[in-house]
Amino acid sequence: MVHDVERTASLIQRLEVQGARNIALSGVKALGDAARKSKAKTLKDFIKELERNADMLSKARVTEPALRNGLEEAVLAARCAGDVRAAKANVAASTKEYAGRLSKAFDRVIDIGVHRIRDGDVILTHCHSSTVTNLLKAAHKQGKRIKVFCTETRPKYQGRITAKELTAAGIPTTMIVDSCARTVMNDVDLVLLGADAFTSDGFLVNKVGTSQIALVAKEARTMLACACETMKFDPLTLAGSWEPIEERSVKEVWDKPPKKLKIFNPAFDLTPPHLLGFVITELGVISPFEVGHILRERQDAVKKRWEQ
Amino acid sequence: MVHDVERTASLIQRLEVQGARNIALSGVKALGDAARKSKAKTLKDFIKELERNADMLSKARVTEPALRNGLEEAVLAARCAGDVRAAKANVAASTKEYAGRLSKAFDRVIDIGVHRIRDGDVILTHCHSSTVTNLLKAAHKQGKRIKVFCTETRPKYQGRITAKELTAAGIPTTMIVDSCARTVMNDVDLVLLGADAFTSDGFLVNKVGTSQIALVAKEARTMLACACETMKFDPLTLAGSWEPIEERSVKEVWDKPPKKLKIFNPAFDLTPPHLLGFVITELGVISPFEVGHILRERQDAVKKRWEQ
Amino acid sequence: MVHDVERTASLIQRLEVQGARNIALSGVKALGDAARKSKAKTLKDFIKELERNADMLSKARVTEPALRNGLEEAVLAARCAGDVRAAKANVAASTKEYAGRLSKAFDRVIDIGVHRIRDGDVILTHCHSSTVTNLLKAAHKQGKRIKVFCTETRPKYQGRITAKELTAAGIPTTMIVDSCARTVMNDVDLVLLGADAFTSDGFLVNKVGTSQIALVAKEARTMLACACETMKFDPLTLAGSWEPIEERSVKEVWDKPPKKLKIFNPAFDLTPPHLLGFVITELGVISPFEVGHILRERQDAVKKRWEQ
Amino acid sequence: MVHDVERTASLIQRLEVQGARNIALSGVKALGDAARKSKAKTLKDFIKELERNADMLSKARVTEPALRNGLEEAVLAARCAGDVRAAKANVAASTKEYAGRLSKAFDRVIDIGVHRIRDGDVILTHCHSSTVTNLLKAAHKQGKRIKVFCTETRPKYQGRITAKELTAAGIPTTMIVDSCARTVMNDVDLVLLGADAFTSDGFLVNKVGTSQIALVAKEARTMLACACETMKFDPLTLAGSWEPIEERSVKEVWDKPPKKLKIFNPAFDLTPPHLLGFVITELGVISPFEVGHILRERQDAVKKRWEQ
Amino acid sequence: MVHDVERTASLIQRLEVQGARNIALSGVKALGDAARKSKAKTLKDFIKELERNADMLSKARVTEPALRNGLEEAVLAARCAGDVRAAKANVAASTKEYAGRLSKAFDRVIDIGVHRIRDGDVILTHCHSSTVTNLLKAAHKQGKRIKVFCTETRPKYQGRITAKELTAAGIPTTMIVDSCARTVMNDVDLVLLGADAFTSDGFLVNKVGTSQIALVAKEARTMLACACETMKFDPLTLAGSWEPIEERSVKEVWDKPPKKLKIFNPAFDLTPPHLLGFVITELGVISPFEVGHILRERQDAVKKRWEQ
Amino acid sequence: MVHDVERTASLIQRLEVQGARNIALSGVKALGDAARKSKAKTLKDFIKELERNADMLSKARVTEPALRNGLEEAVLAARCAGDVRAAKANVAASTKEYAGRLSKAFDRVIDIGVHRIRDGDVILTHCHSSTVTNLLKAAHKQGKRIKVFCTETRPKYQGRITAKELTAAGIPTTMIVDSCARTVMNDVDLVLLGADAFTSDGFLVNKVGTSQIALVAKEARTMLACACETMKFDPLTLAGSWEPIEERSVKEVWDKPPKKLKIFNPAFDLTPPHLLGFVITELGVISPFEVGHILRERQDAVKKRWEQ
Repeated sequence: MVHDVERTASLIQRLEVQGARNIALSGVKALGDAARKSKAKTLKDFIKELERNADMLSKARVTEPALRNGLEEAVLAARCAGDVRAAKANVAASTKEYAGRLSKAFDRVIDIGVHRIRDGDVILTHCHSSTVTNLLKAAHKQGKRIKVFCTETRPKYQGRITAKELTAAGIPTTMIVDSCARTVMNDVDLVLLGADAFTSDGFLVNKVGTSQIALVAKEARTMLACACETMKFDPLTLAGSWEPIEERSVKEVWDKPPKKLKIFNPAFDLTPPHLLGFVITELGVISPFEVGHILRERQDAVKKRWEQ
Repeated sequence: MVHDVERTASLIQRLEVQGARNIALSGVKALGDAARKSKAKTLKDFIKELERNADMLSKARVTEPALRNGLEEAVLAARCAGDVRAAKANVAASTKEYAGRLSKAFDRVIDIGVHRIRDGDVILTHCHSSTVTNLLKAAHKQGKRIKVFCTETRPKYQGRITAKELTAAGIPTTMIVDSCARTVMNDVDLVLLGADAFTSDGFLVNKVGTSQIALVAKEARTMLACACETMKFDPLTLAGSWEPIEERSVKEVWDKPPKKLKIFNPAFDLTPPHLLGFVITELGVISPFEVGHILRERQDAVKKRWEQ
Repeated sequence: MVHDVERTASLIQRLEVQGARNIALSGVKALGDAARKSKAKTLKDFIKELERNADMLSKARVTEPALRNGLEEAVLAARCAGDVRAAKANVAASTKEYAGRLSKAFDRVIDIGVHRIRDGDVILTHCHSSTVTNLLKAAHKQGKRIKVFCTETRPKYQGRITAKELTAAGIPTTMIVDSCARTVMNDVDLVLLGADAFTSDGFLVNKVGTSQIALVAKEARTMLACACETMKFDPLTLAGSWEPIEERSVKEVWDKPPKKLKIFNPAFDLTPPHLLGFVITELGVISPFEVGHILRERQDAVKKRWEQ
Repeated sequence: MVHDVERTASLIQRLEVQGARNIALSGVKALGDAARKSKAKTLKDFIKELERNADMLSKARVTEPALRNGLEEAVLAARCAGDVRAAKANVAASTKEYAGRLSKAFDRVIDIGVHRIRDGDVILTHCHSSTVTNLLKAAHKQGKRIKVFCTETRPKYQGRITAKELTAAGIPTTMIVDSCARTVMNDVDLVLLGADAFTSDGFLVNKVGTSQIALVAKEARTMLACACETMKFDPLTLAGSWEPIEERSVKEVWDKPPKKLKIFNPAFDLTPPHLLGFVITELGVISPFEVGHILRERQDAVKKRWEQ
Repeated sequence: MVHDVERTASLIQRLEVQGARNIALSGVKALGDAARKSKAKTLKDFIKELERNADMLSKARVTEPALRNGLEEAVLAARCAGDVRAAKANVAASTKEYAGRLSKAFDRVIDIGVHRIRDGDVILTHCHSSTVTNLLKAAHKQGKRIKVFCTETRPKYQGRITAKELTAAGIPTTMIVDSCARTVMNDVDLVLLGADAFTSDGFLVNKVGTSQIALVAKEARTMLACACETMKFDPLTLAGSWEPIEERSVKEVWDKPPKKLKIFNPAFDLTPPHLLGFVITELGVISPFEVGHILRERQDAVKKRWEQ
Repeated sequence: MVHDVERTASLIQRLEVQGARNIALSGVKALGDAARKSKAKTLKDFIKELERNADMLSKARVTEPALRNGLEEAVLAARCAGDVRAAKANVAASTKEYAGRLSKAFDRVIDIGVHRIRDGDVILTHCHSSTVTNLLKAAHKQGKRIKVFCTETRPKYQGRITAKELTAAGIPTTMIVDSCARTVMNDVDLVLLGADAFTSDGFLVNKVGTSQIALVAKEARTMLACACETMKFDPLTLAGSWEPIEERSVKEVWDKPPKKLKIFNPAFDLTPPHLLGFVITELGVISPFEVGHILRERQDAVKKRWEQ
């Protein structure tokens, strides 16, 4: 099957490819395929084309650093080459390595994180994150008797996916409306969340409502953990940008609202690092205040790899 | 039209009479009518019957102090009488006075509260409260250019009633999902809420989600006001009880949930007084820490009235 | 010397009469004198004239509840009379009683408050309050070895008046710029402030900067006390109004500012009750959350006095 | 058995009479007995003698407002009499009434408070308070399945008395060292404490360590309740005094400490009202911010009673 | 003297070797000695034996990362060798280097930390830490006039060791019961603590009661410093584990408790990094949020050293 | 023009050279010039002379890490040389490189930081920082419609410089007294500050009043950003020192104060990292908790450069 950049961008845009990891994998693959088949004669032309493709893919969804990181590493790899052939080889190597790294990171986050689930824990989660549900299922398989509260997660009810997945796995699960988190928080031992992105100054970008739940957890001294591959740490924010927040259709909230009513429907919100307890990454359990450092570390590593 | 105690209790139970004030008015009227038509021969029998009726009405919905207060005042009035005739007169006088006091209090809360709405204010409200919507419409009529954020208020979407009422009145209104309150809170000047009840130690009992919004408002130093007639202050709590919280059908949250999934659906939550700014009552703008005192004051006044 | 209402209002407006107590005393006296010399024939006319005078005086400065309280009590007294003669007598009695009550309250606040100054205390104060300086001097006279930090209090440097008064009394005093309060706060045992007004929901209205100092004190767990006669509790706020905050000339801040620069110069700010420790009043040491109750209590007392 | 003032004062001083209620009852009885047997000829002499006796008794232990309140009421009663005979009658009536009121209050606090214990509650308490242990035993008798954490309460291990009393009553109880409160706090539903005194501005005076536990409870959003008869509200503090805090022997902490080591051993500490949830009194469940008001209310009631 | 692994493990277990540094030094030495005397023929056998020994030693006490770090470095060193001889050499070099590094770190922490003690400081400490007492004695020797509050530290009264050591050194010291920390905290300039371990997400593991004192310090804006060699940063936690917390005998709390009483006696508690001010390490004064980074940095360094 | 070390130190001392960057550039240049012209014969003598010069320059103002960092790097470079000639070359290279790095960092901070200014932002700043004013002017040139509040910044009114610069650039600016920050904070979107220094544990050292504003911003959940080149991170603090805080003349506060009045006039204060949102450095937008790490990273880099 041929990976066409425009087609992949469109699939991502129309939500036919979903989930940070899937989006990153298919975007990076599309860039790699296009590079391999490039007809550019000069290095300059090749890089120009590569940048154009990376830009198109990265604009398909704005809040996807795992995609952006993979694309940028490939462009950087090409820039370090001396001619078109070497550049093609670099892009191929970079995209392949990135895809592998991303998959391994996912597994490693679960391996590390499962240690933090204790027998008897009551865990609250918000929205649907495959990292979180797989982590909970892994703990359940190890025989840990956990109970889960999941919010319904308006407007798109992703909490129902979580609820189905966990009850199917045999984990005792209770659903609440999003507004009910504070009512149950004193009975919760751990809030466990996924992440869409982390900014260089340690802010978590995740499904709208996350920051309220984090505040409610802090008020009750309930520990909050976030499971997140470091590929979701966003280098754009290190360079100064605010994390872009996608705004979605009003129909998701109210199908037929009164005429003059405005509806504000942002997909994500921003949780400050002082409301988070720890972050489970493939590098280990760390503080959210390390994000900036890891981003700089990685930028140096990528440069070093291709400059040699 | 005849007011039958059982029928009224049933109407209240089946939500065919709604809103704290309406429930209180119809319940108190039913008690008064039944007393008028009582065939009891002795004072003892009359009071026994009255108490049974009051009990049936008050159990129709558990979180309704405005109803309970009216019923209890009438019972107390009867107890102070010397014979059945005097007792009937006392009940008639008490229920009539209470209904009048309740209606005047509603108007007075709006008259007082409208002063606190400033030209240009951005106001956030949760759920639907007729005290709040009337207060906002009064401010709008006075020419104050206000804007309102209203939450949709899951699971029953009462926020849509608020949204319709306010947009119909010409007030620029924006709806958000309940989870989005923290995202907009820094742009809000005043959170304005109604109340279902206040406990003697100053806790607000209101639609589930209220306490999260209050916490979010406190975090952003946004002032929170509650508009509430003092008839909703609950004497049961002064005597030690926790405010009973109604739990409602799981169908409200998810019509066809997976089999093993539990759903927890409480109608109200408890907001601690340190998260509230001020309470607009018919006695004036006060602190929530005055509730216990006002309850004791009123108990003394009722006793004094009928003991003379 | 004749007390003319217009003249007194003008003296107050031009700051030739200063200090909440002085303003109240001279305003109330002017109202009383005018009532005594009134030529009104009917009770209705007399009351109309009295209300006009009270209004003119109360508008001379907006943030002066001690004045407003005295004027309102006199108007209420007149309204309870049966004819002009009785009304005149009531106004005379009311204004005299109020002046006496105000003076006694001032002394009583110092008598009560001096108990709270401990030997060895380091006290921080802001702006100039004669209640505070007299309280500190009384403690010093009792042999308590206190030290005082006083802010300079921009823009009008009222802290210099405090500094002069305290050093003249032999109290070791250190001046700081307003911005330096947090630097010294860990060495302070008590923040002691006066008040311009208290709102019915317990907010302190005092010289701009007070609320920052209160926040800084709370952060360091330093106790904050406010010395304040209950005549400064503002009944306007019980009835719904926000406390009006006087805005003053930009020249106070910068004599010759650049052309397009705006300068915002409010005289007072609002400190929420949760940042205050206790209030020293002539009724005793109380919580700021009692203000609303005391206001209602007093309104009842005034009504009762004149209605008998 | 004869109640001699000096002897009673000495018994109190030497801790042979213990517990706020016992101390108050025996002190007030001693004052009443001495008044009955007084040989004073003039009212002036009688009152002088009465005041001297009251003073001696009240100085026997400094942190005992329940005692002081009873003594002061009797002195006030005497002052309202016209001659010695009437004064003796007043003192007799006042001391008897006070003793009865105190005993009823104790029972009423338990009756009211037991409503706040829920089936399944995990409760933490500090030190030993008979109000608290009786309240817990009453809840246990009602069939509520509670569990209790009790601190050992250094230096005098009063927690062991609590532990013995509760285990003897069949209540599952776990002891922890005082330092361990934060470790278990997330599993606690209610912190339940007694009180030695309340100040007019709402501060709780209780066994040293109380304020740390209250802070730890607030951090974990665990509700804190205090069970306390209003006779322990201290009128001295309304009049300006800080609550006096007894300092006890260093031997209680370390029998044979190194020579130059100082040991600081205060019996009580001060918990600010914002760390308390509610207070269970014989007047009902109230906020700690009502203490000042109740003190003024009672002073008025006492005056009114004897002035008639 | 021969270092036998089993014997050393047993000495550690029976608390005959105490203090994180001593335990680490003797454990690492025992591992080195056993390696030197190993009779293993193949590299595989040698490593197997080494791992078994390391495991036995590390299980002797669960909360000892300084020991675990030294053992793990030695195992890693062996794994990088090509044959048994080289492996023996690597283990010898690694254990020797680690012991030296640990000792130097101890001295360096004191050299760095002594700068943070100011003339006139009032310092509060909890339990007994030789790093802390040596730091305080060093400051005292430099002529800094410090005063110290030390808690008695129930249940084992280690505060008495601290008190003896400091008074013997001539430092004015005051002992308090653990519950009294909040009473004196406003007079404290610096809370200075040792550490048993730090987790990768920045939590301090130290003697039970530490987290309460840290909370009390935060409430009073008193700076909290922790003196800790980075060898106590626990790599187990980076890999997901919670820090294991040793539970100790109930006899330590109450020698002869009533039969049904449970006693919960954990040796340590967990203090979140937001309650700490700074950490004095041999690398300098740092934030607790750097722990994860330093752990990863060190793992990389160890790998690099032996892989070359 | 000749750069004489003594003369440069004196110019810095007398504030004739101002601003952290200018001071650093002129100090480092003076050290470089002196090294070039040195007549030392041996490496030892050369280094001794260099150290003496660096010491004199660094003492000219105590709170200037950007200067200290440049001087120390040059001394370190010299120490790595084998003879006088190489040492001179190293010093020349080091000082030149440092000056260039510092200038580029300044530009880069503005390039990065301008992304964080949003169209419509209301920004509050304190004192005068050329990094901040240039950043605001850059945002204004990009067409972002910003409004600025600036404090007057007592005692030296540096806010007036800010006000002039911004109004001259056409940015709508409102001045307030320092005490007024809390009054306007709820209308502020971003507090933007410069820095005089950062300590290794993440504390910001900046103009007195900064920490109060930061506290006020936190209370209102207003984001606080600090723009700061990493050369201002202070390695002295990593080695244990507290950041030295310059105390300035009392005349700045009050020209002719009363005789016995003390005036305390520190130039800077200390803001804890938990009150800061993010730091804009030339390395990107980071958390203040990364300062210690970056300091260690840089020390390693400098060592590595010259040791090769």
